[in-house]
Formats: sequence, structure tokens, C-alpha cells
Amino acid sequence: MASGAPQLHASGSPRVIVAGATGFAGALAAHLLWRHPGFELAAVTGRSEVGRRLHDLYPRYRVPLEIEPLDLDRLGQIDAAIVAYPHAAAAPTVGDLRARGARVVDLSADFRLASLSTYERWYGAHPRPDLLAEAVYGLTELHRERIAAAGLVANPGCYPTASLLGLAPLARAGLIADVVIDAKQGISGAGRVFDDTTHLSMAGENILPYKVAEHRHTPEIEEQLQPLRAAAGAGDEVAVLFQAHLVPVDQGELADCYVTTTRPVGDAELGELFAAAYEHEPFVEVVAAPPGTRDVRETNFCHVFAKADPHSGKVIVLSAIDNLWKGTSSQAVQNLNLMFGHAEIEGLT
Amino acid sequence: MASGAPQLHASGSPRVIVAGATGFAGALAAHLLWRHPGFELAAVTGRSEVGRRLHDLYPRYRVPLEIEPLDLDRLGQIDAAIVAYPHAAAAPTVGDLRARGARVVDLSADFRLASLSTYERWYGAHPRPDLLAEAVYGLTELHRERIAAAGLVANPGCYPTASLLGLAPLARAGLIADVVIDAKQGISGAGRVFDDTTHLSMAGENILPYKVAEHRHTPEIEEQLQPLRAAAGAGDEVAVLFQAHLVPVDQGELADCYVTTTRPVGDAELGELFAAAYEHEPFVEVVAAPPGTRDVRETNFCHVFAKADPHSGKVIVLSAIDNLWKGTSSQAVQNLNLMFGHAEIEGLT
Amino acid sequence: MASGAPQLHASGSPRVIVAGATGFAGALAAHLLWRHPGFELAAVTGRSEVGRRLHDLYPRYRVPLEIEPLDLDRLGQIDAAIVAYPHAAAAPTVGDLRARGARVVDLSADFRLASLSTYERWYGAHPRPDLLAEAVYGLTELHRERIAAAGLVANPGCYPTASLLGLAPLARAGLIADVVIDAKQGISGAGRVFDDTTHLSMAGENILPYKVAEHRHTPEIEEQLQPLRAAAGAGDEVAVLFQAHLVPVDQGELADCYVTTTRPVGDAELGELFAAAYEHEPFVEVVAAPPGTRDVRETNFCHVFAKADPHSGKVIVLSAIDNLWKGTSSQAVQNLNLMFGHAEIEGLT
Amino acid sequence: MASGAPQLHASGSPRVIVAGATGFAGALAAHLLWRHPGFELAAVTGRSEVGRRLHDLYPRYRVPLEIEPLDLDRLGQIDAAIVAYPHAAAAPTVGDLRARGARVVDLSADFRLASLSTYERWYGAHPRPDLLAEAVYGLTELHRERIAAAGLVANPGCYPTASLLGLAPLARAGLIADVVIDAKQGISGAGRVFDDTTHLSMAGENILPYKVAEHRHTPEIEEQLQPLRAAAGAGDEVAVLFQAHLVPVDQGELADCYVTTTRPVGDAELGELFAAAYEHEPFVEVVAAPPGTRDVRETNFCHVFAKADPHSGKVIVLSAIDNLWKGTSSQAVQNLNLMFGHAEIEGLT
Repeated sequence: MASGAPQLHASGSPRVIVAGATGFAGALAAHLLWRHPGFELAAVTGRSEVGRRLHDLYPRYRVPLEIEPLDLDRLGQIDAAIVAYPHAAAAPTVGDLRARGARVVDLSADFRLASLSTYERWYGAHPRPDLLAEAVYGLTELHRERIAAAGLVANPGCYPTASLLGLAPLARAGLIADVVIDAKQGISGAGRVFDDTTHLSMAGENILPYKVAEHRHTPEIEEQLQPLRAAAGAGDEVAVLFQAHLVPVDQGELADCYVTTTRPVGDAELGELFAAAYEHEPFVEVVAAPPGTRDVRETNFCHVFAKADPHSGKVIVLSAIDNLWKGTSSQAVQNLNLMFGHAEIEGLT
Repeated sequence: MASGAPQLHASGSPRVIVAGATGFAGALAAHLLWRHPGFELAAVTGRSEVGRRLHDLYPRYRVPLEIEPLDLDRLGQIDAAIVAYPHAAAAPTVGDLRARGARVVDLSADFRLASLSTYERWYGAHPRPDLLAEAVYGLTELHRERIAAAGLVANPGCYPTASLLGLAPLARAGLIADVVIDAKQGISGAGRVFDDTTHLSMAGENILPYKVAEHRHTPEIEEQLQPLRAAAGAGDEVAVLFQAHLVPVDQGELADCYVTTTRPVGDAELGELFAAAYEHEPFVEVVAAPPGTRDVRETNFCHVFAKADPHSGKVIVLSAIDNLWKGTSSQAVQNLNLMFGHAEIEGLT
Repeated sequence: MASGAPQLHASGSPRVIVAGATGFAGALAAHLLWRHPGFELAAVTGRSEVGRRLHDLYPRYRVPLEIEPLDLDRLGQIDAAIVAYPHAAAAPTVGDLRARGARVVDLSADFRLASLSTYERWYGAHPRPDLLAEAVYGLTELHRERIAAAGLVANPGCYPTASLLGLAPLARAGLIADVVIDAKQGISGAGRVFDDTTHLSMAGENILPYKVAEHRHTPEIEEQLQPLRAAAGAGDEVAVLFQAHLVPVDQGELADCYVTTTRPVGDAELGELFAAAYEHEPFVEVVAAPPGTRDVRETNFCHVFAKADPHSGKVIVLSAIDNLWKGTSSQAVQNLNLMFGHAEIEGLT
Repeated sequence: MASGAPQLHASGSPRVIVAGATGFAGALAAHLLWRHPGFELAAVTGRSEVGRRLHDLYPRYRVPLEIEPLDLDRLGQIDAAIVAYPHAAAAPTVGDLRARGARVVDLSADFRLASLSTYERWYGAHPRPDLLAEAVYGLTELHRERIAAAGLVANPGCYPTASLLGLAPLARAGLIADVVIDAKQGISGAGRVFDDTTHLSMAGENILPYKVAEHRHTPEIEEQLQPLRAAAGAGDEVAVLFQAHLVPVDQGELADCYVTTTRPVGDAELGELFAAAYEHEPFVEVVAAPPGTRDVRETNFCHVFAKADPHSGKVIVLSAIDNLWKGTSSQAVQNLNLMFGHAEIEGLT
């Protein structure tokens, strides 16, 4: 099969699996696909909890399927998969799925970076560098057409999703000379991981910065900004400063982008730039007041707000998403919708 | 009485009142003074809740005094007062107290800004501009000696407290060319105010930016940074970009300061600068890991962490405090300690 | 129109309004009706916030209608209304709506109690006692058929909803000799009310019992239990002890029912009783493990768990709901579905 | 040394260690002892985190000692120990400490139950049944004199602490015919344990009942109530029904006790009983309004409230504590104060 050719199950909806459905991201993806009118959730797999219904692990997600080990030989024809494994663990499974013709949305970092050397610096050896060339970066609003045709979509990290949706209109206009991104995220961003950062008695009543001057998401943001800037004729590459924080909410993420612009920009121009960028986007809303993350909780929406600060001469862009939804799993479904010819909003509103 | 002359009550400890003890800041100040071995808490006053014991309003603060209206004629000799009123409401009371010789720590914004015109731009008409000249800015670590001799101390806002403790070592070294401050605070920072921003069902599961490109604390930070920079021979004034957020914790505040430096600075130099600045400070601790606000909850400590980001060339300074303690009421007591010759840490550890 | 006769708008779906849409309950009802395929949300009314879009007040609820004053003359044909007013304020509006032929689901306490004297003891004078006779108590699972035919449905309180769904199978079997109900609720249960009980800095880190030995929901529970018990031939009335608590969650409610039984009952019999009661119920699930409220958050489900305690001889029934959903607004929609011939689950899954 | 004889370190304060200082309870005990004027904290031991300062693990607890393995040979003369191990693990260490003459407050369940068979039913084999005879149950207000003379104090569980302080005045008056206890606790009660019940993304927005009809604390409560009732001439043993819940607070615990009385009791009599029981107690306060746990957070206080419910004929007693303080570690220090002749409140206010 040519990568990207629509591939529909003979008897009806595409058959999709979620590999790694026991974590927060995989479970939500399974929930969204289970209730989706345009896909058949064929299996949910996991390396733990085998034999338990996903419903019992995540009662709010009323998915009655049992967790099973991933056994591609047994699963029969699979049209697509969402892979929710940690980085490095994901790539081999992605490769196996691709080899059988399944189209894949991978939630890990394994195929997000075009540059192999950048990947290796941050994550170590890459298990399947041969697949990098076919991967499309899955920020829907930036790469819609290529995603629609893709065989392998590398779903963005939640931090880059919020950051890039906030910055893209400025980057395309060649306005970014320098940017500081200060991002805050809820505890679900740490995943179903059990340690001091997720225990309520330690994460509660805490505002916790982490990975200072060493965040893996920096190169991902830079790689995506660069072609936008270049197309606008902007000059040198921008070195992004990205800083992450955990705050005691469950789901929610805010990226504050502080942009030094290449020339003075006022609120009128900002209004036009952002309206033009997003007026036809079903899931990005340019809002009139500073966006709280609660406003987008459990939705695929991104709320964006931009304002000039005449005092400092900088531009402030605020971008709010649900880290597990638009930041991860519902964006994966948004991409699957594109890949299989469904309306982009199907199953997501 | 000459402003600043020590003024001790004949029979023993200085008699102190808290004016405006029904709000969060005033109540905590009363709690700290009640258990303080070196002061006599003579009265707690309020415009509401008159006749109720402070203990009944704030059961954790075991202060058995009844709230009374502020009636200076009835109170007898008062050596000092902490005034916890909103801006504009504070200044007249501060004036009355000063007229009777009481030394005052004012928690409002009324005397924080040296420039009257700056005050008027952000807060409107000033009720007592005549008192501006005698006011000393109450960030203990910056103005210890002047505070010790002061008759009127303008206690800093919590945001400037965290920000300035993070930035002062760099400012004094003339290293700040540009700075973005992204601050996050718990809901107690909004005070005992009842609205959408404090209701748990709206403040919970929310990360909320507010007052974008218009924060009143910006000029306060700039006014304090400027002389430090000037003393180091740094050039033009720095236009600070300050952005505030509410997150669903009760007490806690983190200021992330992103500094473009006037020349390259590495971690070794940062380590020396911050160690030199704070090694003798009883309440500022330079920490080895990114500081969470939980670590300083209900203490007068400020935890500061500085790191160079070679990628962007900037310096990141993180500063964590409890907004109600070091950010407000315990710093007021720290200042009172200095003003009355007590050990600076008395009653605070 | 005979009360209860189906009343469909000529051109299609029934036209429904939500009166009092600015509070938590009314806003959620509007959200559910807006996305409901079988109703037309004709208007959202309020006494405050007039002219603002409901979407702007509650961004997660993407209802673009503007809040308008309630003016029945202007609204044209209204087939049904959900009234979300406080008690005493609701009854006159309910009367006006009934006079024009609209079928009403009232969320207030005004028509929940059959006994006028009981109402007056707890709530004061009743504005429209003439309407009591036609009101049907809106706990769907207990009164499904009468609700389907009703012109006026008194939606239950959230506490009685959870309690009665837990107790009904035992009451019908004549097994309840005595019952203590200890209920815990999230802060949204207090409504969009701004005071010490809802401020995050007071409601957070708190477990707060309230209204000890004086809860208004006691008679509502007793009135509903009594006919079930009587039908089983049980003797004297049961005096329910009901105790309420606020805990720092947003939405969620758990009722623990401690039942002294009229004869020994074991887990096998309990299992049969509850299975028989709820096996065909679309929204009541008898669960195998103690139910957490998180499992039913933002759903119309009630999770029920029953277990005998051989040590004390009592039976423990745990009943978990979302206080705003099944406890209030989604149950109102469930009732509207019945009243207008829709599938009971329509718009609710 | 005879068990219970005062044993003071020659050179000054008694030397105390905390064994198991890396968990929440041990760390708080170390914090309280470190700042205590009457004890010398000689060591903090742990099986993990060896070599790290306790301050680094728990920054709010400014204890600079390093965690070391427990090596009694190396520690020299130890006058007392607080042992914060899990049950079964504690008993052997308690035995070793007793063999060297140290007086011990054990925070585990190992010595709380006088009946060996009851222990074995709930916890399995007892490692040191020979020590049961000398153990004194450490609920200070019930056993003050025996604690003062004890060599081994079995600190109560937090649930029994709250429950028994609420019930003791009724038990001593022979008024308890039957009791249901519904208790709610913060997540710190689960300890520094990492699983679904403590992860903020699962414990948040949840009200979770657990261990239905099988709680280990039931026999502990019954064993303590029985002699109080017997002394009052009350008849058969009472079979307590105890039900526990986790709610998303960090520290806090409320026990609601629903008592069927042996004869009618009104509020006046309740007021006298509770006043008489607690008027001289430094840490038990009979409060006039239903007690929230926030009121006692991070204190050794227990707030008790009792009210008759004429409707049901029952008595409701509410008892609020901080589960880690009065429920565990500060009560341990209260007991140590008694054991070493300090004022009972020393170091605790």
C-alpha cells in the first residue's frame, strides 16, 4: 500500500487499535475511539493489566474491551493504530504496524524530530531511524494536508502543541526575533507514574519548576518554527528558551510566550494576524480575555490570546489546552479523522 | 518623636496593633505577633466582624482578642502598627498612626512607590502624598538599615518580593539587560475576596493568567532595580515585563525571571554572585534544585535558584516564597523586629 | 392541554428554555439541551449577566445564546422549561409557565415535598401551594411512568438522589428498620455562591460538616422511602438521620447509608436485591468495588455498592453520583426525555 | 532499669532517635523533636535515602541530620525512640530498643491491641508477643498516667484517635448502645506510598470509600471503648461499625460518630458531659460549631462537637484532627513529654 492511501475495512469503519491503553493517554484515546461513529476500536493492548476491562481501570471511560497483549498475528486486519508507548519503546512497534500496512499515530517522541542527531542527543539511540523520513509532524493546524496522506504521524508533545499554536502566526509573519516560553501543566502530564511529583501530598500546594535549561521539547519547537520563519524571510535561527512547571491541577496546560519581535507590533496587527491564522480552524479559538485552562478542559480546543506590551516592547501570547486532549489523545483522533477522510471534528465535539 | 527613634513601651514589650485583621494578611500578622515573645499585641481592629474573636474567624490562628473598631483615642499608647487595608484606604490611617508617634508597617501599595506620578497612574489620587518622603521600602534584604530606623515602612507586594530577591544579585552586578518575569501565585493572593477567581469550583482545575501587559507591580520592581543597576554602572533603564497567574494552591508563589544579560554569564559566576548575596541572610536560601513553593509554605523563607541556559544565552532565576508569609505578613514582622531591635528571626522560626 | 399530554412543536423538536441559566445547575442544563438532538434550546434567561453569551460565562459550555430576562410574552410558544431558581423564587415562575401550557422540570425544593406543612416548616410560606397536587417527584428510577405523563416534575435534591437510589432496593423489601446517611459533596453543591465555604483558601484542605441535626433533605428522603416500605408491609415510619459535608472537590457526591435491617441480610441476598432493582436501569450501575465519585464525574450515572457487615449486623450501601449531573441537571434532562417520548439516554451518553 | 523510670541523659536533654524518618510520620516526628527545647534529636534513621539530609527530603522540615541506617551499637546511649515502621516490621526493632533500655513510642499497630488473637486475625503472626504486656495504649487523654510511666507506648491509629476522643465522654457515661463511625481522611493518611490512591490525577476530584466492612481499626476502637463502658456499668459489648474514606486534602481527618444512646440524651446533658471531660485538656477543644479539619491543620488539637438529633433520637459527635499531627506524630511527642516529665504542651504550640 502506498503510504497515505485511504485504507478502509471492507465491511465498514476502519479498524483501529490502541497499543498501550493502560496509561492516561492511551486510555483516553481508546475512550474517544470507542464512542467515535467513524472508527471501530478493534483492540486495546497493554503490557500490564492484561485481562482486565479498560472500563474497570478507568471507570469514566466506558470501554468494555479487555486489555490484551499486543499480538499482531492474532489481531487480523488493522487499518490504523494509536501507539501510546514511551519513547524508544514505541519505534519498534510502530515499525511492526507499518510493515503490515497499518497507518499509525505515534504519541511518543520517537518520530517528532526530523534530525536524527538531535533525537540522539536528547533520547539516545533511535531504534528505527529508517522510518524518520516518512513521519509527518502531527500538529494538525500546521500540517493538515501532509497528515491526511501520511502513513506515520508523529503526534506532538503537549508543550509544543500549545507553544506552536501560540507562536505560528508570529513566525509566519517573520516577527519572532527571540522567545521565552514559560509553560505550566497539570499532574496528568507526568503520566500514570508514581513518585514524589504525582503524590497528592507532595504535588498539592506546590508550584514546581523542573528541567531548568534542559527541556527536551525545545528542539521540537525550534524545528517547527524554523521553516515558518524561513518562509517569511526571517534571518538567523531562534534559540527558544522553554521552561516547564507542574501545578496541582489534573488536566490543563498554559504556555506563556514572551516574544521579542523583529519590528514593533501593535494590538491591531496582532488581532489581524491571529484572526487570519485561525478564523477557519475548528479547534483554535482566538479569545478576547486571558484564557484559563479550565475553559478548555476535556476538549480538543486551544484558546489563544495575544497582546502587545508597549512598556517592554514585547508581545505576549497565551495558549491554553488540555494536555491530555488537544495536547495528546484528542489531537491524535483529529489526525486520524484527516487520515481516513472523516470530518475533522467527528467524535470530538 | 524623631522618625525612627526606638520607642519602647515603658512596662515592657512594644505595644503593637494590627489594623484590618479580618483579611488573610492582617489575620496572619496578628497570629505571628500574638505568639511573638518580643511584642505585645494590643488590639486587632476591623470594619466588619466587630465583637467576634479573631480565633473564631481563623481557628488555626489562636488569637483570642476580639475584633474592635479602630479608635486611636481609646487604644492608649501604641508603639507600632501593621496596617492591612486596601490601597487608598490605608494612607489616612497610616497618617493618623504616624501623628501619634506609632511606627507603621503598611501592607498596602500606598507608600511603595517613590514616584507620586507613577502611583497616580496606577492607583488614582494619593490620599497622603506628604508621607511619601519618609516611607522606606520594606524589602528587608535590600534596605535593612533604613528599615531599622524607619517610622513608616512600605511592605512590598508579594510579587516584587519574590522577583527582587531573585534579581537583586544580577542587578547589583550590572548584568540585567532585559527581564521577563512570569509569576504564579496561590488563591490566597486574591485575598478574602469572593468572586469567580476564588470560588473553588472555578479556581480549581484552572491555570489563569490575569492583567496581561498591565500589571501594577511592574513599576514597583523597576523602581527598586534601577538604583541597584545604576550603582553598578549599568546603562538605560530596564523595562520589566511582568505577567501574573493564579493556580489552585492556597499559599505559594513562584517567580521565574528570564534575564538577558549584558554579557555572557555562566553557572560558576552565578553561583558566586548568589552565594555572596545571600550567604548571611537568615531567610534567603540559595538552593541546589529548582524550588517548589511547597518547600517554603508557611515560612518566611525565600528559596532562590539560578542557572545559565547556554542554548538561549539567557539566565533563569527562580524564586519561591509563601505569598502570605515572606510575601506579606511575616516580612512585616521581620521588619518590625529590625525596627525594635529584636533579632531579625525572632518569632519567625 | 391535559397535563402530561405530549406537546411537540409543530416544526420539529420541542422548544425548551432554561430559566436561571447563570448558576451552575442552569448553565449545565443549557449545555446539555444545546447539544441534545431532540430539543431546541429556545432561550436561556437570567436576572443578572443579561446580554452576555452563556458561552462567555461558562466557556466549557459552548452555548452561544445570550442571557435574556425572562419574558414569557416575548418568547413565543414554549413546550418545556427547566427552572433553576432558588426555592420560593421558583414557584411563581413555574406557575406562569404552567399557565401557558409549558411542561416544567423545577430544580428547586418548591414541589419536592407532598406535605405543605413539612415544606413550611423548613422553607417558610409556599408561594404556590395550589400546584403541589400536580407535581411528580422527579427521581427517574422511582417514578418513571408518572414523570412521563407529568406537567410539573420536581427534580430531587442531589442528596436525596444519591441516598434514595442506594436505599430503594432495601426499602421495597421492607428491610430498613433504621438508617444513618453520611453524605459528602463537592463545592459546586454550594452553587455559584461566594463566601467562606466556597473560597478555595478556606474550602481547600478542609473537610467540613454542616447543618448538624437540621438538614432539609431529611423529610424529602423520608417522604420517598415511606411508600416503598409501606408497600412491603414494613411498620412504623423510619426517622432518617442525614448528615452533610463539603469536601474540596468540584463535582462529586457520595452517600454512605448505614442500615439497621429488620432481619439479618447477607451479601448474597443483597446482590440479588440490587441486581433485580437495577439490571435494566440505564444509569444505575451496581458495582463490585467501593465506588469513588471520580468514576461518575460528569455523567448521569449512579454507582451503587451494598455490603453486609456481619460484625455490626448492619448493611452498608454506598451511592456515588455527580451532584450537578445525576444530582441535578442531567437528571432533569433524563426526565425531559421521558416527558417528550425520547429515549431516556438521549443526549446523556 | 525498671520500665517507666525516668531516664535522663547525664549531660542534659534526653537523647531521642526517630527510626523510619523517611516516611511522612517519621519525618514530622523528627521535625517536632528537632525544634523541641526538651529533647536532643540524636539520629534519624531509614532503610532508604541513607546519606541524604532529612532537610533535603522534606524541605519544610528544617532538620539538617543525615539519614543513617539503624545501628544501635553505633548510636551510643539512646533514651527514647519514636519508631515509624510498618506493622510487623516495627516489633523487632522495638524489642531491640527496649533491650537497651530505651523508652519507645511505636507508631505502628504492633502493640495497640491487647489481644494477641485479635492482632493475628488482622495482621498475621506477631513478631514479639512477649512485649504486649508492657505496652500502654498511647491515647494521651485516656491513659495519661500509665503513659507517663511506660517503657513502651503504642501510639494509636489516627482513626481511633479521632473516634475515641469523640466517643469517650459518652462511653464513660454508659450511654453508647450502638455506634456507626464514618471517617474521612486526607491523602497523607495513605503514607508516602505511590499508587492509584495517592496520584493527584486519581485522588483529586474523588471521594473514595475503602475497606468496607473490614477495617482494621474497628477492634482497636472497641478494645478502648469497652473498659470505659464497663466502668459505667453498661452491658453487652458494642460492635462498632467503622467506615473509612479518602478525600483530596493533604492532612486532615474527620470522624462522624452516630450514636444510639442507652437512654434519651439532650444537648444540655451533652454539653455538660463534654465540658467535664475536656475542660482541663490542653489539646481537646469542645467547639460551638461543626468543626472543619482546616481549623486544626498542623496542630495537635482535636476539635469535638456533640449534638442531639431529636428527630432520630441519636447523638452525633464530630471529631476533627490532623491525621499526621494529633493522629500520629505530635501525639507521639505529647506522649514523650509525659514520659520524660516535660510539660505536656512543650514543643507543640
